[in-house]
Amino acid sequence: MVERNKNMAKLQAGYLFPEISRRKNALLKKNPDAKIISLGIGNTTEPLSPCITNALRDAAEGLGTHEGYSGYGDEQGLAELRGKIADTFYPKLASAEEVFVSDGAKCDIGRIQLMFGSSATVAVQDPAYPVYVDGSVMMGQTDNYNPLQKQFDGITYLACSPENNFFPGLESTSRTDLIYFCSPNNPTGAASARDQLTQLVDFAKKNKSIIIFDSAYRDFIRDKGLPRSIFEIDGAREVAIEVGSFSKLLGFTGVRLGWTVVPKGLKFDDGHPVIKDWNRVMTTIFNGASNIVQTGVCNALTEQGLREMHATIDFYMENARLIKDAVTSLGYENYGGVNSPYIWARVPGKSSWDAFEEILEEKHVVTTPGSGFGPAGEGFLRFSAFGHREDVEEAVKRLKE
Amino acid sequence: MVERNKNMAKLQAGYLFPEISRRKNALLKKNPDAKIISLGIGNTTEPLSPCITNALRDAAEGLGTHEGYSGYGDEQGLAELRGKIADTFYPKLASAEEVFVSDGAKCDIGRIQLMFGSSATVAVQDPAYPVYVDGSVMMGQTDNYNPLQKQFDGITYLACSPENNFFPGLESTSRTDLIYFCSPNNPTGAASARDQLTQLVDFAKKNKSIIIFDSAYRDFIRDKGLPRSIFEIDGAREVAIEVGSFSKLLGFTGVRLGWTVVPKGLKFDDGHPVIKDWNRVMTTIFNGASNIVQTGVCNALTEQGLREMHATIDFYMENARLIKDAVTSLGYENYGGVNSPYIWARVPGKSSWDAFEEILEEKHVVTTPGSGFGPAGEGFLRFSAFGHREDVEEAVKRLKE
Repeated sequence: MVERNKNMAKLQAGYLFPEISRRKNALLKKNPDAKIISLGIGNTTEPLSPCITNALRDAAEGLGTHEGYSGYGDEQGLAELRGKIADTFYPKLASAEEVFVSDGAKCDIGRIQLMFGSSATVAVQDPAYPVYVDGSVMMGQTDNYNPLQKQFDGITYLACSPENNFFPGLESTSRTDLIYFCSPNNPTGAASARDQLTQLVDFAKKNKSIIIFDSAYRDFIRDKGLPRSIFEIDGAREVAIEVGSFSKLLGFTGVRLGWTVVPKGLKFDDGHPVIKDWNRVMTTIFNGASNIVQTGVCNALTEQGLREMHATIDFYMENARLIKDAVTSLGYENYGGVNSPYIWARVPGKSSWDAFEEILEEKHVVTTPGSGFGPAGEGFLRFSAFGHREDVEEAVKRLKE
Repeated sequence: MVERNKNMAKLQAGYLFPEISRRKNALLKKNPDAKIISLGIGNTTEPLSPCITNALRDAAEGLGTHEGYSGYGDEQGLAELRGKIADTFYPKLASAEEVFVSDGAKCDIGRIQLMFGSSATVAVQDPAYPVYVDGSVMMGQTDNYNPLQKQFDGITYLACSPENNFFPGLESTSRTDLIYFCSPNNPTGAASARDQLTQLVDFAKKNKSIIIFDSAYRDFIRDKGLPRSIFEIDGAREVAIEVGSFSKLLGFTGVRLGWTVVPKGLKFDDGHPVIKDWNRVMTTIFNGASNIVQTGVCNALTEQGLREMHATIDFYMENARLIKDAVTSLGYENYGGVNSPYIWARVPGKSSWDAFEEILEEKHVVTTPGSGFGPAGEGFLRFSAFGHREDVEEAVKRLKE
């Protein structure tokens, strides 16, 4: 008979969001009239901007015509779109041929893990977006789950907390092949400073490691001095891959479009360019992002399109300001929400789940328990700024009451 | 330093289509006025039908409104679409919860290989669509490439030729965990008969293997007696996964939408349901197909939409008839083209590449050398029926001259 893949068996049940749902439903059962507002999941809520909508509509309509129809495209993405992503997000930092367009960052992270294979060693920030860990587990890059430590053995967890300014103590960190790093960070909302990212790049250079830099929230940065790409750091092109996404920038969580940048000079120990294996992975088990979406975004990455993109981000960041204000007025020590859409609040003397439960019960507001992102998230709650303004205002009113 | 994944290093250079391009360009250099027509790649050419186009356009436009906007959806696909795929393609054969919507068959095949992991043993038809082999190599399910045999060691190749009616001699085939099987077949155009697929299912049951059945060309079958799904065969739900695609059915090679059906009763040796691990893979490293595409197809899978789908398939099958007729008039023994869009022609006394070169030189028509799909394809050419009618007519005229 066919054996179950032992790496799949190591995975723990996806607990966080199902458990949040269960508790929400339990409240609704007790109190059917409760108007629950979610500041939980990081899911975009506002309609696409006119520029993007029109471009997507035109691209779809074009496929019904002989002139506008297209079949298989390059798996790496439309050449023009690769160029526009390079020009828009990486001027003088990366070239079009280094940009690979995809159906999203989550999917690219899965493919990156496949590219490196089961013998790669891995470090992740703690707390972190769960896909870095779960994807590494599936690829066999880890040992078993350690229920005592609530971590997988064989992964290096880099604890990030207010105490270390959300940046790991690298001097005491052992070498791994890969280092996943996300800034602005989900869930802590911390945006790393230039000197922090310089430390990270130097650490990777010293250890000959590769950084997988997740820049999904790059344009939520308000502070002009903060880097939006790892490639703004000297030497990063020798040690880093960057994963980007339109999910939060254009409200594309459902539309699906992302990209990965692999610098040409990045090499394996035998001198083989990483970009060549990435190209092989993308051409072998991927077949290009939807032509509707690629053509649409390509035509909408104009000055006007980018203005609209920033306006929607501004909208969410005004939500973040309102929420941060309310969380502060609750007396919670809190972080983030200034250069990212997440507010990370310490709930002293309580566990994440107890604090979650209290706010749900008393305010009918859903948050996300920090412990769901890793053990270093225990004692924190994440508030997400993605939501309709009227919902955020109502949630804020309740929190302040 | 980071070691290169040794499985990536096993892959051979993607030779087939780049080499075809090279030879095409060489001809154009010699003869710049040559009007080359491609019957090579299996790429759709006709505009989307009105029903689909309108539904995609409306879905795109809807995202610009508060009512029509949607963010993250279920990674498994829109519930309504899963139901429609089940009802349309698997009446009484599979349920909506067994259908997982994706961005295409190629991507799903990659994820299936990840689900089974590196210790799974694999059998493929020879010749075959290259992704089964290359994806298995990347996952570490094979040994090294054997240049003498032009095959990877550690994979079981099931030779399919006119001599065995394009169905492998299973009595002399050793057991593997997985068996990739494609019908109607790319590249041979053979559509397996019910008794052949029954043999295949019985073989898998006896060996407790799992069949990965690729049904991408299902609706190109004209002969009503031939199965369009492996699940039409008794007992298949205990031993098979089916991968489907809208690429060739709806002309979605660029739009991207596919699905995979995993029966609830399919189990690993420890009794764990395969569908649970598939769900975990899809929710962990995939984030749903584009909502524009899912909503569009969901609204277009109507009686009228399906009529239009069949009309486009009929169009390509008329191309197939014209090409098959021309290939026959050339005196080539040939197969397929009746229940599939591919004609598989034997070129006696010549290698695939020599025959390719001759037709390119003399007729300015591009075909695909059969040897590119595996050693058992040597001595054959594949003609693809995807093309504009005027191009096909011109190619046919030249072939007959």
